Amino acid sequence: MFDSLWVNVHAATMAEAGSPGIIKNAAIGIQDKKIAWIGPQKEMPQKPEPLSEHVHDGGGRWATPGLIDCHTHLIYEGDRVHEFEQRLQGLTYEEIAKAGGGIMSTVKSTRTASGQQLYDSALVRIQALLREGVTTIEIKSGYGLDVATEEKILRVATDIHDTSGLRIQRSFLGAHAVPPEYAGRPDDYINFVCQDMLPALHQKHLVDCVDGFCENIGFTRTHIEKVFKRAKELGLPVKLHAEQLSNQRGAALVAQYGGLSADHVEYLDEAGVKAMAKAGTVAVLLPGAFYFLREKQLPPVDLFRQYKVPMAIATDHNPGTSPTLSLLLMLNMACTLFRLTPEEALAGVTRHAARALGYQDICGTLERGKAADFALWDITHPRDLCYYFGRNPCMGVVRAGCLCDFESSPPLFFEQRQAVF
Amino acid sequence: MFDSLWVNVHAATMAEAGSPGIIKNAAIGIQDKKIAWIGPQKEMPQKPEPLSEHVHDGGGRWATPGLIDCHTHLIYEGDRVHEFEQRLQGLTYEEIAKAGGGIMSTVKSTRTASGQQLYDSALVRIQALLREGVTTIEIKSGYGLDVATEEKILRVATDIHDTSGLRIQRSFLGAHAVPPEYAGRPDDYINFVCQDMLPALHQKHLVDCVDGFCENIGFTRTHIEKVFKRAKELGLPVKLHAEQLSNQRGAALVAQYGGLSADHVEYLDEAGVKAMAKAGTVAVLLPGAFYFLREKQLPPVDLFRQYKVPMAIATDHNPGTSPTLSLLLMLNMACTLFRLTPEEALAGVTRHAARALGYQDICGTLERGKAADFALWDITHPRDLCYYFGRNPCMGVVRAGCLCDFESSPPLFFEQRQAVF
Repeated sequence: MFDSLWVNVHAATMAEAGSPGIIKNAAIGIQDKKIAWIGPQKEMPQKPEPLSEHVHDGGGRWATPGLIDCHTHLIYEGDRVHEFEQRLQGLTYEEIAKAGGGIMSTVKSTRTASGQQLYDSALVRIQALLREGVTTIEIKSGYGLDVATEEKILRVATDIHDTSGLRIQRSFLGAHAVPPEYAGRPDDYINFVCQDMLPALHQKHLVDCVDGFCENIGFTRTHIEKVFKRAKELGLPVKLHAEQLSNQRGAALVAQYGGLSADHVEYLDEAGVKAMAKAGTVAVLLPGAFYFLREKQLPPVDLFRQYKVPMAIATDHNPGTSPTLSLLLMLNMACTLFRLTPEEALAGVTRHAARALGYQDICGTLERGKAADFALWDITHPRDLCYYFGRNPCMGVVRAGCLCDFESSPPLFFEQRQAVF
Repeated sequence: MFDSLWVNVHAATMAEAGSPGIIKNAAIGIQDKKIAWIGPQKEMPQKPEPLSEHVHDGGGRWATPGLIDCHTHLIYEGDRVHEFEQRLQGLTYEEIAKAGGGIMSTVKSTRTASGQQLYDSALVRIQALLREGVTTIEIKSGYGLDVATEEKILRVATDIHDTSGLRIQRSFLGAHAVPPEYAGRPDDYINFVCQDMLPALHQKHLVDCVDGFCENIGFTRTHIEKVFKRAKELGLPVKLHAEQLSNQRGAALVAQYGGLSADHVEYLDEAGVKAMAKAGTVAVLLPGAFYFLREKQLPPVDLFRQYKVPMAIATDHNPGTSPTLSLLLMLNMACTLFRLTPEEALAGVTRHAARALGYQDICGTLERGKAADFALWDITHPRDLCYYFGRNPCMGVVRAGCLCDFESSPPLFFEQRQAVF
């Protein structure tokens, strides 16, 4: 007997490469928060009777795996809307930075905010993502850059995981920028990250992954390698912001350390793509930042195809360079701006996004044994999700087998709540 | 005594050029569906007591004029998502057109759809716009291209006006494309538009405005001028799709006929801008189509500023070149892609959008005597609406003094419904 059973849905399982894996008129049986059975409804097992005491009629909607936003900076205080306006009024980045703007303004606000303030503002963002079918979210620290604030951010991420029921991956991004206390001393700061901050936060069980920003305006390969070595000593997987604005050969470095993903990667070259392919490192494409910064250099999508590097897509939500809360919009931007096919884009927020988090055995596809995480859509085909932009046809979200109540805050997942449609 | 009264809101009146017209801690008194009083709450009239039997607490939210989407093609049957996928898979526009795609596929589907089908599919789109604070929408025909279907579309637009309570402007766009029956005979088709279609539909009171598509893949200036002459004879205002893909001097033509707006206008030159300024013709910018078609030529924003041509912004919602239903996203795209300031963008969906429809004395600003149409937002400043993309902070919509119930379909406006927050 299933804990619950969904009938009268069309499923896009995303389980196979090169296909959305469509099952028309499908049924999904759920047991112990996982998919216990999925297939055409007419092939459903006949016994025991009843198959479940909790049968949900999907009303002919489409079910996809719960979407996965595998790269966000969701926890911070203070927007950067004023800078946005100033730039459009003609001020330069330098003038804004001199006036106290840029990433350091976010660090400053985040340091002074309470944990509760950070939780409250992050939850509004989380709910916007959830409302579009997102059930798994990666959240980076990196707006603290000191032990206390990085800990505060990672604790908020933990609280969001515990209270919302969403699956949250916490990435420690100490190597995001050099904080004011270490101005002009990046080597000293990286030593602090490796020797003090990372071990302390790891010991408190607040770190799932380690991330960094390798760029001419960020940290060098040498810096990042130190951080990666320390992460490996602690048994933590790594990922990297790489090749966003220039080719620093960061992707090859993260691949060398068996990294989960190299993110942005607009300036990546063929050698870097080959290194990623060899290591199984996922390319996380972030079209929101590309759009918002009006970048011109496209990521090497054809090379990713050629070398079979999985492409994931994420919002990169952050207040400076990607203030978006729509993963659906990123699907359209990945197609429109980066020329992905709708099928590639959908894989990018499901199967490949799971792999970018190391969750490929847990979620990202609708298959027996995977988490019962799925979104229900009022669409005629899964590719509709990529075609429209600025439209949300999400009619419901199931996470760990439970239908979400969008109206409650924080979002709650009712074990056996009846479907409302 | 006011029919109803809103207190504890911050208002952005958009009533003055060059300023959002902010009134912190404002009150808005409504009488006969219009704004009877607006100002700081502490300066509110003291008598009679009570000022109203229906007092709404805005909860510190921001109120802006109800947004105006002044250029849409919302009524049609059949999406073009398959073409979108085919192009991304490498097919050319020519190959798609040969296989029956393009605008003619929409015309074909729309001709065979029933009025009820068109109404139902349009209403879903209307509700998405409404949910983001839109209270006035322009809708064009132009997917019929024969009398019966153009009439069907315009009747659906009329029905939407009558049932939803939204303000709808109906534009006749017979001169959108040459239908199959007139293939190779555009002159004959334009004669048919002028002599048969337009007068017949006008006589049935289905036409508020006349529009056309002046382009090397559309109609010539000579064709459009014939249509405009006929419109003028019938006393109908005109507008034009002009200079989208090339400079056809269409904007100067529509200005010559005292037109409401010239729309798209990426390829407009200084002479055209001057002509528009002289005639008071509004420039309607459509960043969604620009984005979706990956255009490079920017509209002459600096010239519009220099010659004080008002700039409006709209979704251009249509299934082929702008399948978006988010006017908020267009605000961000107008800033990010066209470099408008947030204030200019906000004026573009309020004050200037009203002017683009000839409604400048009716709506588009929060002022005494204007319609009591406003949206309530969970933001810290109106510019927030331009900064975020893919986020909807709309908490409520008031149209003609009545708070909308988002849950009902079609949307209903309850005269005295209490605010839910």
